[in-house]
Order: sequence, then structure tokens, then C-alpha cells
Amino acid sequence: MSIGKSVKRVDAFEKVTGRAQYTDDIPLNDVLVAKVLHSTIANGLVKGIDIKEASKLSGVVKIVTCFDVPDITFPTSGHPLSLDIHHADIADRKLLNRRVRYYGDDIAAVIAKDDVTASRALKLIKVEYEEYEPLMSIEASLEEGSRPIHDNFPDNILTHSNYQIGDYEEAIKEEGLITFEGEYITPMVKHCHMEAPISYAYAESGRMVVVTSTQIPHIIRRIVGQALGIGWGKVRIVKPYIGGGFGDKQDALYEPLNAYLSKSVGGRCVKLDITREESFVNTRVRHAMKIRIKSHVRPNGRFVAREIEVYSNKGAYASHGHSITSKAGNACKQIYNDEKAIKGDMYSVFTNMPVAGAMRAYGIPQITFALESHIDEIARGLNLDHIDIRKLNMMKPDFEDNGIKCHSYGLLKCIEEGKKYIDWDKKIEEYKNQTGLVRKGVGMAIFSYATGVYPILLETASCRIVLNQDGTVQLQMGATEIGQGADTIFSQMVAEVLDIPTRNVHIISNQDTDITPYDSGAYASRQSYVSGMAAKKAALVLKEKIIKHANFMLKLPVGNIDLKDNMVVNKENGDILASLEEVATHAFYNTEKSVHITADITNQCRSNTFSFGVCFADVEVDMAVGKIKVNRVINVHDCGKVLNPDLAAAQVHGGMSMSLGYGLSEQLLFNEKTGKPLNNNLLDYKLPTVMDTPHLEAQFVDTYDVSGPFGNKALGEPPAIPVAPAVRNAVYHATGVNFNTLPLTPQRLVERFIKENLI
Amino acid sequence: MSIGKSVKRVDAFEKVTGRAQYTDDIPLNDVLVAKVLHSTIANGLVKGIDIKEASKLSGVVKIVTCFDVPDITFPTSGHPLSLDIHHADIADRKLLNRRVRYYGDDIAAVIAKDDVTASRALKLIKVEYEEYEPLMSIEASLEEGSRPIHDNFPDNILTHSNYQIGDYEEAIKEEGLITFEGEYITPMVKHCHMEAPISYAYAESGRMVVVTSTQIPHIIRRIVGQALGIGWGKVRIVKPYIGGGFGDKQDALYEPLNAYLSKSVGGRCVKLDITREESFVNTRVRHAMKIRIKSHVRPNGRFVAREIEVYSNKGAYASHGHSITSKAGNACKQIYNDEKAIKGDMYSVFTNMPVAGAMRAYGIPQITFALESHIDEIARGLNLDHIDIRKLNMMKPDFEDNGIKCHSYGLLKCIEEGKKYIDWDKKIEEYKNQTGLVRKGVGMAIFSYATGVYPILLETASCRIVLNQDGTVQLQMGATEIGQGADTIFSQMVAEVLDIPTRNVHIISNQDTDITPYDSGAYASRQSYVSGMAAKKAALVLKEKIIKHANFMLKLPVGNIDLKDNMVVNKENGDILASLEEVATHAFYNTEKSVHITADITNQCRSNTFSFGVCFADVEVDMAVGKIKVNRVINVHDCGKVLNPDLAAAQVHGGMSMSLGYGLSEQLLFNEKTGKPLNNNLLDYKLPTVMDTPHLEAQFVDTYDVSGPFGNKALGEPPAIPVAPAVRNAVYHATGVNFNTLPLTPQRLVERFIKENLI
Repeated sequence: MSIGKSVKRVDAFEKVTGRAQYTDDIPLNDVLVAKVLHSTIANGLVKGIDIKEASKLSGVVKIVTCFDVPDITFPTSGHPLSLDIHHADIADRKLLNRRVRYYGDDIAAVIAKDDVTASRALKLIKVEYEEYEPLMSIEASLEEGSRPIHDNFPDNILTHSNYQIGDYEEAIKEEGLITFEGEYITPMVKHCHMEAPISYAYAESGRMVVVTSTQIPHIIRRIVGQALGIGWGKVRIVKPYIGGGFGDKQDALYEPLNAYLSKSVGGRCVKLDITREESFVNTRVRHAMKIRIKSHVRPNGRFVAREIEVYSNKGAYASHGHSITSKAGNACKQIYNDEKAIKGDMYSVFTNMPVAGAMRAYGIPQITFALESHIDEIARGLNLDHIDIRKLNMMKPDFEDNGIKCHSYGLLKCIEEGKKYIDWDKKIEEYKNQTGLVRKGVGMAIFSYATGVYPILLETASCRIVLNQDGTVQLQMGATEIGQGADTIFSQMVAEVLDIPTRNVHIISNQDTDITPYDSGAYASRQSYVSGMAAKKAALVLKEKIIKHANFMLKLPVGNIDLKDNMVVNKENGDILASLEEVATHAFYNTEKSVHITADITNQCRSNTFSFGVCFADVEVDMAVGKIKVNRVINVHDCGKVLNPDLAAAQVHGGMSMSLGYGLSEQLLFNEKTGKPLNNNLLDYKLPTVMDTPHLEAQFVDTYDVSGPFGNKALGEPPAIPVAPAVRNAVYHATGVNFNTLPLTPQRLVERFIKENLI
Repeated sequence: MSIGKSVKRVDAFEKVTGRAQYTDDIPLNDVLVAKVLHSTIANGLVKGIDIKEASKLSGVVKIVTCFDVPDITFPTSGHPLSLDIHHADIADRKLLNRRVRYYGDDIAAVIAKDDVTASRALKLIKVEYEEYEPLMSIEASLEEGSRPIHDNFPDNILTHSNYQIGDYEEAIKEEGLITFEGEYITPMVKHCHMEAPISYAYAESGRMVVVTSTQIPHIIRRIVGQALGIGWGKVRIVKPYIGGGFGDKQDALYEPLNAYLSKSVGGRCVKLDITREESFVNTRVRHAMKIRIKSHVRPNGRFVAREIEVYSNKGAYASHGHSITSKAGNACKQIYNDEKAIKGDMYSVFTNMPVAGAMRAYGIPQITFALESHIDEIARGLNLDHIDIRKLNMMKPDFEDNGIKCHSYGLLKCIEEGKKYIDWDKKIEEYKNQTGLVRKGVGMAIFSYATGVYPILLETASCRIVLNQDGTVQLQMGATEIGQGADTIFSQMVAEVLDIPTRNVHIISNQDTDITPYDSGAYASRQSYVSGMAAKKAALVLKEKIIKHANFMLKLPVGNIDLKDNMVVNKENGDILASLEEVATHAFYNTEKSVHITADITNQCRSNTFSFGVCFADVEVDMAVGKIKVNRVINVHDCGKVLNPDLAAAQVHGGMSMSLGYGLSEQLLFNEKTGKPLNNNLLDYKLPTVMDTPHLEAQFVDTYDVSGPFGNKALGEPPAIPVAPAVRNAVYHATGVNFNTLPLTPQRLVERFIKENLI
């Protein structure tokens, strides 16, 4: 039995010894280097580009500009293609763009023999612009008369989606309701994966190959095809090991441009490796959001009706914008339920800022910050217990919303475990009536998170397993290992079904769209659930075929055989009939009925389920300097069956760290007048280091989700959700000050404490 | 329709432009270089190896000797594993061998940082031998009291197989029979593929990867596993484009040693690229044979009974020896049938010479030289027409031998076409009564050749096809492209079944045993027949799945739909219902029933069929200098349906050139005393160049073989069979001298002409 054990990562040895090949490790012959010329204005039009001087530079092979590229607009977001044209992703950019929409927009590219030459050539290109006023905030973009960033979106609103459940106007008429209003603001932050997006592109047999650090090789294939206007079968994407993605690489980044660049030099191999500085602004960021909540509550804390407004800062291009904003808005009615009514309006607004796209937890960290801050304010306003008010309003078992069903429910248990670890009741008592400049507080936050994208979008995954002569198997997943441990989990799943050691499952980590079964890729915490089911089903098919062959080989009646501990056994009495190796070898080489036993299947997933979790934090606020010290912090998760405790804990640690940075220090900053990014580097952008990080406690409650392949549900993204609001609430508890804008930087704290006459 | 057309090679562009990556083109990081130390005696024992000096050399990483390697013997021949232990390949060598069996045997290896260091280190290794007398001929090995080369073969005979049909002793009692006897001797020759065997080996996730220039990646996987004593699933073989094999690479060559060398340096990447000089003696050669035929013939030329003795020079290790010798002996009773009886005895004899293994046409060039020389001698002896006597005795339609059946029969037509081209009757007349030192003659030879190895060995092949979103497909074959055009043929086959353009079939040329469907590989002219059937069946399965999905998509009753010209059409009236692309895209992305359409099947072949062919040659012999000029030469083949006329002609041209060299100039020579090779280089070994080659005429007769996937049968090897005997017979016709030893070198001719008082 493999599931539930802390099996060592299957890629541990390769990665620890440095043998694992990431894109930049792959040796190449005769490779050219490309560099992109970015606009130095945030809003405007390229009137002309003079490449004369640059072209003369020795070693420059080719320069292409926004005047050269095909007149094709394409979408970049990593969604499976929607056959329903109304759900199609927005095709709003070309490979290079004359219409400049953010500071750093791609307007030209140089292909040269080496890096230095390419960089020098960039500096020799002269650009003439027609410049417009940059729209550097949601408010600026929405202002009457603001210039449209995209012609076909005259009011700069990419999408406005909304919902209404119950009769809101009627509901709020109830007598005795208390109304709470709040506005919550979250920052634009960056994924900061270790490996910057990098790709090679070259032609092969009249087709285009792109080797790239992506979470979604099969989707990139389609988008490269769309962007170049060629058949998608003429594109081959190869994904080696990748150094993290966190959603940034759930978008087509520079793959389409690189394919075009290679094509423009006759299919020679072109490498496009962007810098950390480019990665900050030229890939994707997390949507900054402004969220307004108005709640109508009975004195006991029960939500009767709520009204939500979500404004998200889309940046310059659509990417995932519509879906993330919508997902955030919809989450309001999931984690908490109103007795009578709820309505939501979600706006995705273009600005002249970097493009917001997918980032771990896809809109839910933002909305959870708002909801969990808001409910604490209500609790304090009504003098209620912060946990009781949540229990009163939160999702109950068997809840269902829009096809997402609560098939398993560990939320209450999560809260109990978290309380215990943080010693909640004692601390609440202990931290009463503090004075002085250093005060302590506890806070908590809860959340729910769906697993995958059904029923909004297609959920499909494929898997192929091949039996080797020695009874080991090769496993090919379309799903991608992006550092999270997917390969290990899938190997465990197949080992579990076949009852063989996990080390006997040899997973092919790299995806190659020419031969790798189709899968949408790594996002939406879908892989262990959707792709895992494909792995399970393929293993079951393989098992059936093995047993069928064993029956043939052993001349036994059908139905009498099972696989156990690497052996073929009598199902009734457990007697060993043959080793799996003997049956496998026989299948390959017997002359009566030779067969290469494989399974190659698709799993279309038509279910979804909620994961849950809480964070509890115990903090100390040094008000004089605005410094928050996190003394204790715990995430407790209900992710269904924990497939691999060590890997699950590692996921949680990473997510907690990300959410701590989100809460305390991270924010991309811009010159408001020019739109120029101010801190797009790892020195000035305050990503927490290991020195900033307290002990991160990860715990799990034991549930089993019937809709998951092995009782499991989402865990990849959820850990990144609750820490920021829990810390914010702990600060609120410590100081009585409700910080509703993230991150809780010293400057922000000190200014507010002064304003509140606390220091 | 694709089959039967001269579709351009699918790898033409890559190969012509130099983009196709052969093993040595693959860029590698941090690679070590290995060189093998070869024995400088032909027969003996290594008593000691002193590596002290060599080890001190800076840059030497490791030296391993025959004293270090595991005590495992393994077989090398590229056969599918036989589960019947009696048919198992002979395991008779270790990775490095103390018991030296030929001049050049592998006794140690150096791993160094570079080529020069490795070569220098080799020279510093001191070896102490116990030396025995080399056995440099079949006769020497068979001599009473000769020292066994392998302890378990005390008489130096690897195998003695035999057959007897009819009662030979009774048959030869018939009155009036004339007896003809002849002894025919063929030389040891070399494949001379352009690319020498080369491999890289390295460890990956605890498994061993070997990238190698081989015809048989899946078999190499097994042999590396056997040689290293590890599970075969722990071995991964990757086969890039290869520069020819001709059977030499149907053996495990240095792959097992290289895997061991990599393992001995902790799995670092080791490159083992042998020189041309090594390739000549350290890989495989064609069996030199001595063939005795005794025929009992009626005056009209009818064979009543024959007796065949075949002695083949196996060299130092078993490799393919037993099967090739046996195949040669068995062919006697196939191309010609005796009215009453035939018996054959085939001996495979170890000598202290390079190892004989598979080479294009696998024993049949040798036996055909003997049979076709012999029958011409009978014709001349009985004053019969050389063609009539063949027609009288040769295989007739519906012939069957040992499970090989004549399913189609174009032999007579081949002879007619060849006669016509060479203007046979006129030349026979014209060349009568020649005198002088320059004489002309015509000669011909016929042959039959089985297709694949059924029923002697397992014939199995697998294929996977994957449908792309744009209606193109990916094609994965376990069968290997080795320069012969297999990839193009398989692509045509799949295109034919799906009725799409061949360019819409994207074949994955490289085999990777981790993911490539199982196939035994390129040998026995089996691939278009056995693997081709797998391609056809897989395409039919894919077609069925596509139609099934089209039915679902179009909501049409089953059975009404067909594929035509890249479209899905109404079967009855041909109306276009949708494009294949639309159906494919729908299959991927519809949310009702999403499926990644693939086909992954095994074809076990349980049939075999005879191919046929003839060669006619018109030569001019300058007797004073022993020079043979080939004025006209034609091969006419019956290979069933010609799948691609241009590629088929190319196969024939290559084979004819090979057979011309075999007949006229090629022979590996040795110092008889020391066993040292004398001409193991391309200067001294007389491979014909383009300057030596006349126009090679290739023609085909039109037959259709019902047992083949598209009416086709063997063509890969047959062209290499008949030219040497046809030329020999033409020389016989011109001069009246029967040269029964190949090659027909000037020295051999002049000596004989002097002896015969002709000059």
C-alpha cells in the first residue's frame, strides 16, 4: 500500500544531486539568443521603430518589430479551449504590439548570436511614441472619459459579472438588522517562482518545437498554433522539470513570440530567457482587488443578507481576468451562507499596469482577506466570539453551489485542531486589556476552496501506463510536475492500484505534446483529483489486462486472480501463482498470444468538491515601529485523504510562507505618473526569506472525499489563502485597529497607529 | 491515397539540411569518454593487467578490467527473447573477457575526461597473457585436438543442425542420374555502415539510460538488463536517427559495456564511440561460409536429390551464428525443390576471428552464391539453357516450407523482365565462340527470401497513434528507421487508412523504450510486413474511434460515416459532414464527452511469405589483368505491392552495390599466424565507391501478397543477394571458368586463368 505514506519524492535524487534537467540545463547546439524590447511608456502608440543602427551590430541575426508580426490576436490564459464562443478567452494581443498598454509592453525583439550582442542591439533601437496618460488605478480607468485601453472595451471594463440569490431588497427590510460595511484592498504581488520563464524554439520536420518552463504544455501547444496561425498538430511543446510556476506559467508567456522568432530565422534554435526584472512585469501578477462588503446581520451574528462588490485590477491584457474576479465574487456565497439573500457584482478593469493572471488560489486570497477581516469586524461590533460567528454562518455539509458540492466536510475539525494548537481560549483571556507599545493578539481565518474547474470549464485528463518485462511500469501523465510533487503522487496512485512498490512505477516526468496523453495541466488544485482519477482508471485498466493475460498464461478461470505485493495471487486463498515479472515477460514473449500490455485512457471529470482549512496566528505588534512578529502560526487543512503526509506538509509550508509575504511585506510598486515599475527585483520587492519566517505548523484532519480518486481533494493552492487574514485579525485583536489594506507594512501600521493616537 | 506513390521521405528535409540529430549530434553536458582496450593476441588468457601507470595519468577517471566485471555471461544477438530455453540465445561473453578469443577481444576500458587522455591511458596499460595457437579457419577449429574456444563447446561447433526430406539414399539409386558436386567459399565481409556504433550511457532516477545507434532498441534494453543483472524496466534505451546498420546493429554491441562503465562512475554520462578500425573487427561481420553441394540430376536438368553441407565461420562468439547458418541451409530446399529428396547439414564453427552476426540477407547471399553457381555448372555440364533449368526446379506458387508460404508469386515475371532488359537471348548468341583476352558474358541468379522470422521466432510489433486537434496524427512505432525509409512507409500506411495526406502523419522517429510501443526492431525485412500490419491495425482502431466520436458529435446513426480526403463524409453519398479537424477539436474540448483519441495496439504476426528476385548481369572480363567490368546489371524484384517506388528503387540500388562489392572486391584479411586483422580500414578494405559502380537498374513486378498489410512483402534485404552470383555466372559464361570462391579479385582471376592456360 502506497497511498497515505510519506513516500520519498520520486525526483528527489535527481533534484538534490543537480542531475534533473531544467530548461536551461538542456544542452543545445548552435543556439541563437533573443531579447525583447519593452516600451518605456505605459500607454500610447508606437509611431515608428528605427532598427538601422542595431541591425548593423555584428552578431545581430534579425530584428523584428510590432510592424512585422502577423495581424493575429490571441488569448494567453491557460484554459482548455471552450467550444462555446461566449466562453472563449479574450484574444487581445499580438506577438508584438504597436498599441502600448503598460510600461514594458513588448514592441520588438532582437535575435543575436549571444546575449551581450542582443542586449547591446536593444539599446540601439530607436522608438518614436505617441504617448497617452497612463491609467494607473482601477479608479482612473473607470473615470468618465478615460481613454479605452482596448478599443473594444470602451469603458475599460473587461467583464462585469453578477449574481443575486434571494430577494436582497426584501431581506434587508427585516427589523433589528445591524449593517456592517467595509472596503478591503489587496496589493499586486508576484509569484516569484525560482525559475524565470525560459524557452527554446526551433523547427523540426516542418513543425515548430518549443521547449519551455510551463505548467500547461498541451494548452501552450494550442496557443502557439493560434498565435502563429498554424495547425496545432504542427506545434510540439516539451516541458522539462520546472522551477515553480504558482500560476504564472498557467499562461502562454513568451512561447508564441519565441516560436515566431525561430520561424523568422528559418527555424534555427532561439533561446528566450527573460531576466528576473522582466519576469516581475512582463509575465503575470496577482490581481490587486478592491472589495466592498455590506452585511446585514442579526444581533446574534447571523448573516441575513450581504452585498459584495469586487473590482479587480486586470492590468493591460485580459489573461485570466474574467474568471478570477468572478471566482472571487462567487466564493462569498460559498464559505458563508446568508439566511435570505446575497448579491454580488464583479468588475474586471483594464489599467496600464502589468497583466494580472492566475496565481495560487486564483482570487480566493483576496476575497478571503476581505471576508475574514469583515467578519471579525462584525464579531467585534456585536461583541461576539470570533469563532462562534463563523460557525453560525459557515458552509455546512452537503452544501452545493453551481455544481460544486461539499462531498466531505472537515471544516469544524480544522477549527478545533487550530484552536488547540494556538491555545485559543487561553490566549483570548491572556491578551485582554493590554496596554503599552508591544501588544499581543490571536487571529484566525477560514476558507473553502473548490477542486478543479468543473463545471465552469472542461475537466479532462489522460494517462498512459506501459508494463515492462520485469513487472515495473512506465507512467505517462499529461499532468505536470511543477515542483509540487505531482509525479510522486501519481506514482503512488498507480502503485496502490497495482499493489507494487512505488519505486516500480517509473514516471516520465517531462511532457512532450507529441506523445504525452492530453491533460490541461497544473492549475486549480486539480491534478491529484482530476488527473489522479485518470491515473487510477488507467491503472485499473492495466490491472485488468494483466489479470487477463495471467489467466491465459496460467490457464485459470477468469475472476480467480488478483495482484498482491508484486505477485499474481489466487484471489480466494492468497496463494502466489506467479510473479508479476513472470506474467509480464510471458506477455511480451510468448508465441501464442504476444501483447504489449498498455493502458491509454481519458478521464473526464464531472464533479467538484470543497476543500477547507483554517489558519490561526499568534502575533506580537511592536506599535512604535510598526513591526509584526508572528510567534505561532498554524494551518489546518481538510484536503480529504492525505496522500503523502510529508509532501502535503511541504505544500502547506510553501503556501503559508506565500500568504505571510502577502500579509506583511509584498507589493509591486509603480511610479504613478509614468507607470514605471519601482521594485521589480528581489532586493526591493520584499519577498520573505527564511530569516523572516517563523516555524510553520501544518496539520490535517482526516476526511475521505468520495468524489476523489483516493478520497483526496484540493490541497495545492489552499495553503496560500488564510495566513494573511489570520495575521491581520491577530493584529486587530492585539491593537484594536482594523487594517483593511494589505500588506501590513511598518509604514502603514505606524501611520495608522499615529492617526488612532495609539503611539 | 498514399500507398504506391513515391511520397518524399518524411526525414528528407532534416537529413539533407543536416538538422537530423544522430547520436553524436546530440549535445551533452559534462560527458566522459570511454575507450576499450583490445587484446593483442587472438587466443589465450589474460593473466594480469597492470593499470598503475595509466591510472596516474591526469584526466583518467576510472579503469575497469576483465577482473572487475560481474560474473555474468550474456547473449548479444538481436532476437526477441525465447521463452523456450532450448531456443535461447547463447550467453557466452562477459562485459570484458579474461579468456581472449580473437585479436581485439575486449579486456579493459578506460574512462577519461577526453578522448586523447583515454587513448594515452590505453597505451600505458600493461597486459600479461597466456597465449594459445590461434584457430584461424573452420578447418583449424574442427581439427582433432584443437583447443576449445569455449569450454562448453569442446569440438568448437556451436551448433550442428540438419534436415532430411524424402529418402535420400533411395532417391539417388534412380538410374541415369548425373551427379554434380561443388564447393563454394564466401568471404568474411563487413557492413560498412556510415555511422560507427556509438552510445552514451548515464543514470537517471536510479535507472540506466543508453542513447545508442541501434536497430533494436527494445532488445538492447533487455540485453543491457541481462548483462548488468538488473530489471529490464530499469533500463531505458533511446535510438536517435542512425546512419545505417545492415544487421551489424541488430546485435548488442557496446551498449552493455557502456552502461556498466557509467554505473562504475556513479552514473555519470559516458560516451563510447568506436573508431572505424574497431568497427571492422569489434562489432560483427558476415559469416564466411564453405558450402558443399552434391546434386543428382536427370539429363533434362531435374533435381532428384541433393545433399548440402554448410560450414560457417562463427568467429569468437555465438551472436546470431546458429540461426544464420541454419537459415542458409534451409534456403536450399526453398528456392529449388527436389523431386525425391534433400538433406542438409549445417555447422556453425567457432574460430579465433571477429564475431559473425547478422548482415543484410542473413546467410542467403552465401547460399545463393553456392546454389546459383552450382546450377550454372549443371546447366553447362548438361548443355541446358541456364534459365530453363531454373524454371524446371524452382519454387512454384503455393509452395510451403516450415510455415513459410508462398502467398504471392512473381518469380517467373521477374525472370522475364530481367531477360528483356539484359537482352538475354541476343547476348547468349552474340557471346558464343569468343576468343581473345577480353571476353563478354551474361549471367543471372534467382533467389527467394522469407519475410520476417515467423514461425522460428516470435513476430510481434506495436504501434500507437494519437489524434491531434487539427486532424493530423502522431505516429509512434517501435519499429526503427535505420536509413531505409521505414518512417516514410509507416506514415504512408497510416495516411492510407485514415485517408489523409502523408504530411499530416507526424511520425516520432526516435525510439525511447520508456514510451515507444514494443517492437523487435529492424531486421529480417520484417518491418513493412509485421510492423506495417501494426500500423494498419492501429490506424483502423483510430479510424473507428474517430467515426464513433463523429457519430456522437453529429448525432448520426452508426455505420453511416466514413473518412475521406481529410473529411468526415456520409458513406452513402459522399457528402461532407464535417472536417476531420472539427471532429478532432470537438473530441478534445466538448464538455459532454471529452476524449483524447488514441490507438495503442500490438500485432502478433503468424504468417510469413516469400519474396523473390533475379539479377541479370552483362560483363566484360579483361583476362590479362583479371578485371571485370559490369556493363549492365539489373535486379528485378517481386516484393508484392510496391509501397513507394522511389524508396523501393533506392533499397535495390543499395543492395546491388553491396552485392557487387561482395562479388568483386570485399574481404576482411588476417595474419594467419597472429590473427591480427590486416585491412580493417576503408583504405585497404575494398568497398566499392561510386566510381566503381555501374548504372544500377531496379525494376519490380506487380504482385499483391494477401498476407501483407498492403499486399507487400520483404524488400529490405533481398537486393543484396543475387548480384554476386549473377556476375560470377556472367564471368563463367564469358570465360568458361567457374570461380567458386568470392570475391572475384584480379589476383584470383589471373592466377586461375594462368592455371587454365587462358592467359
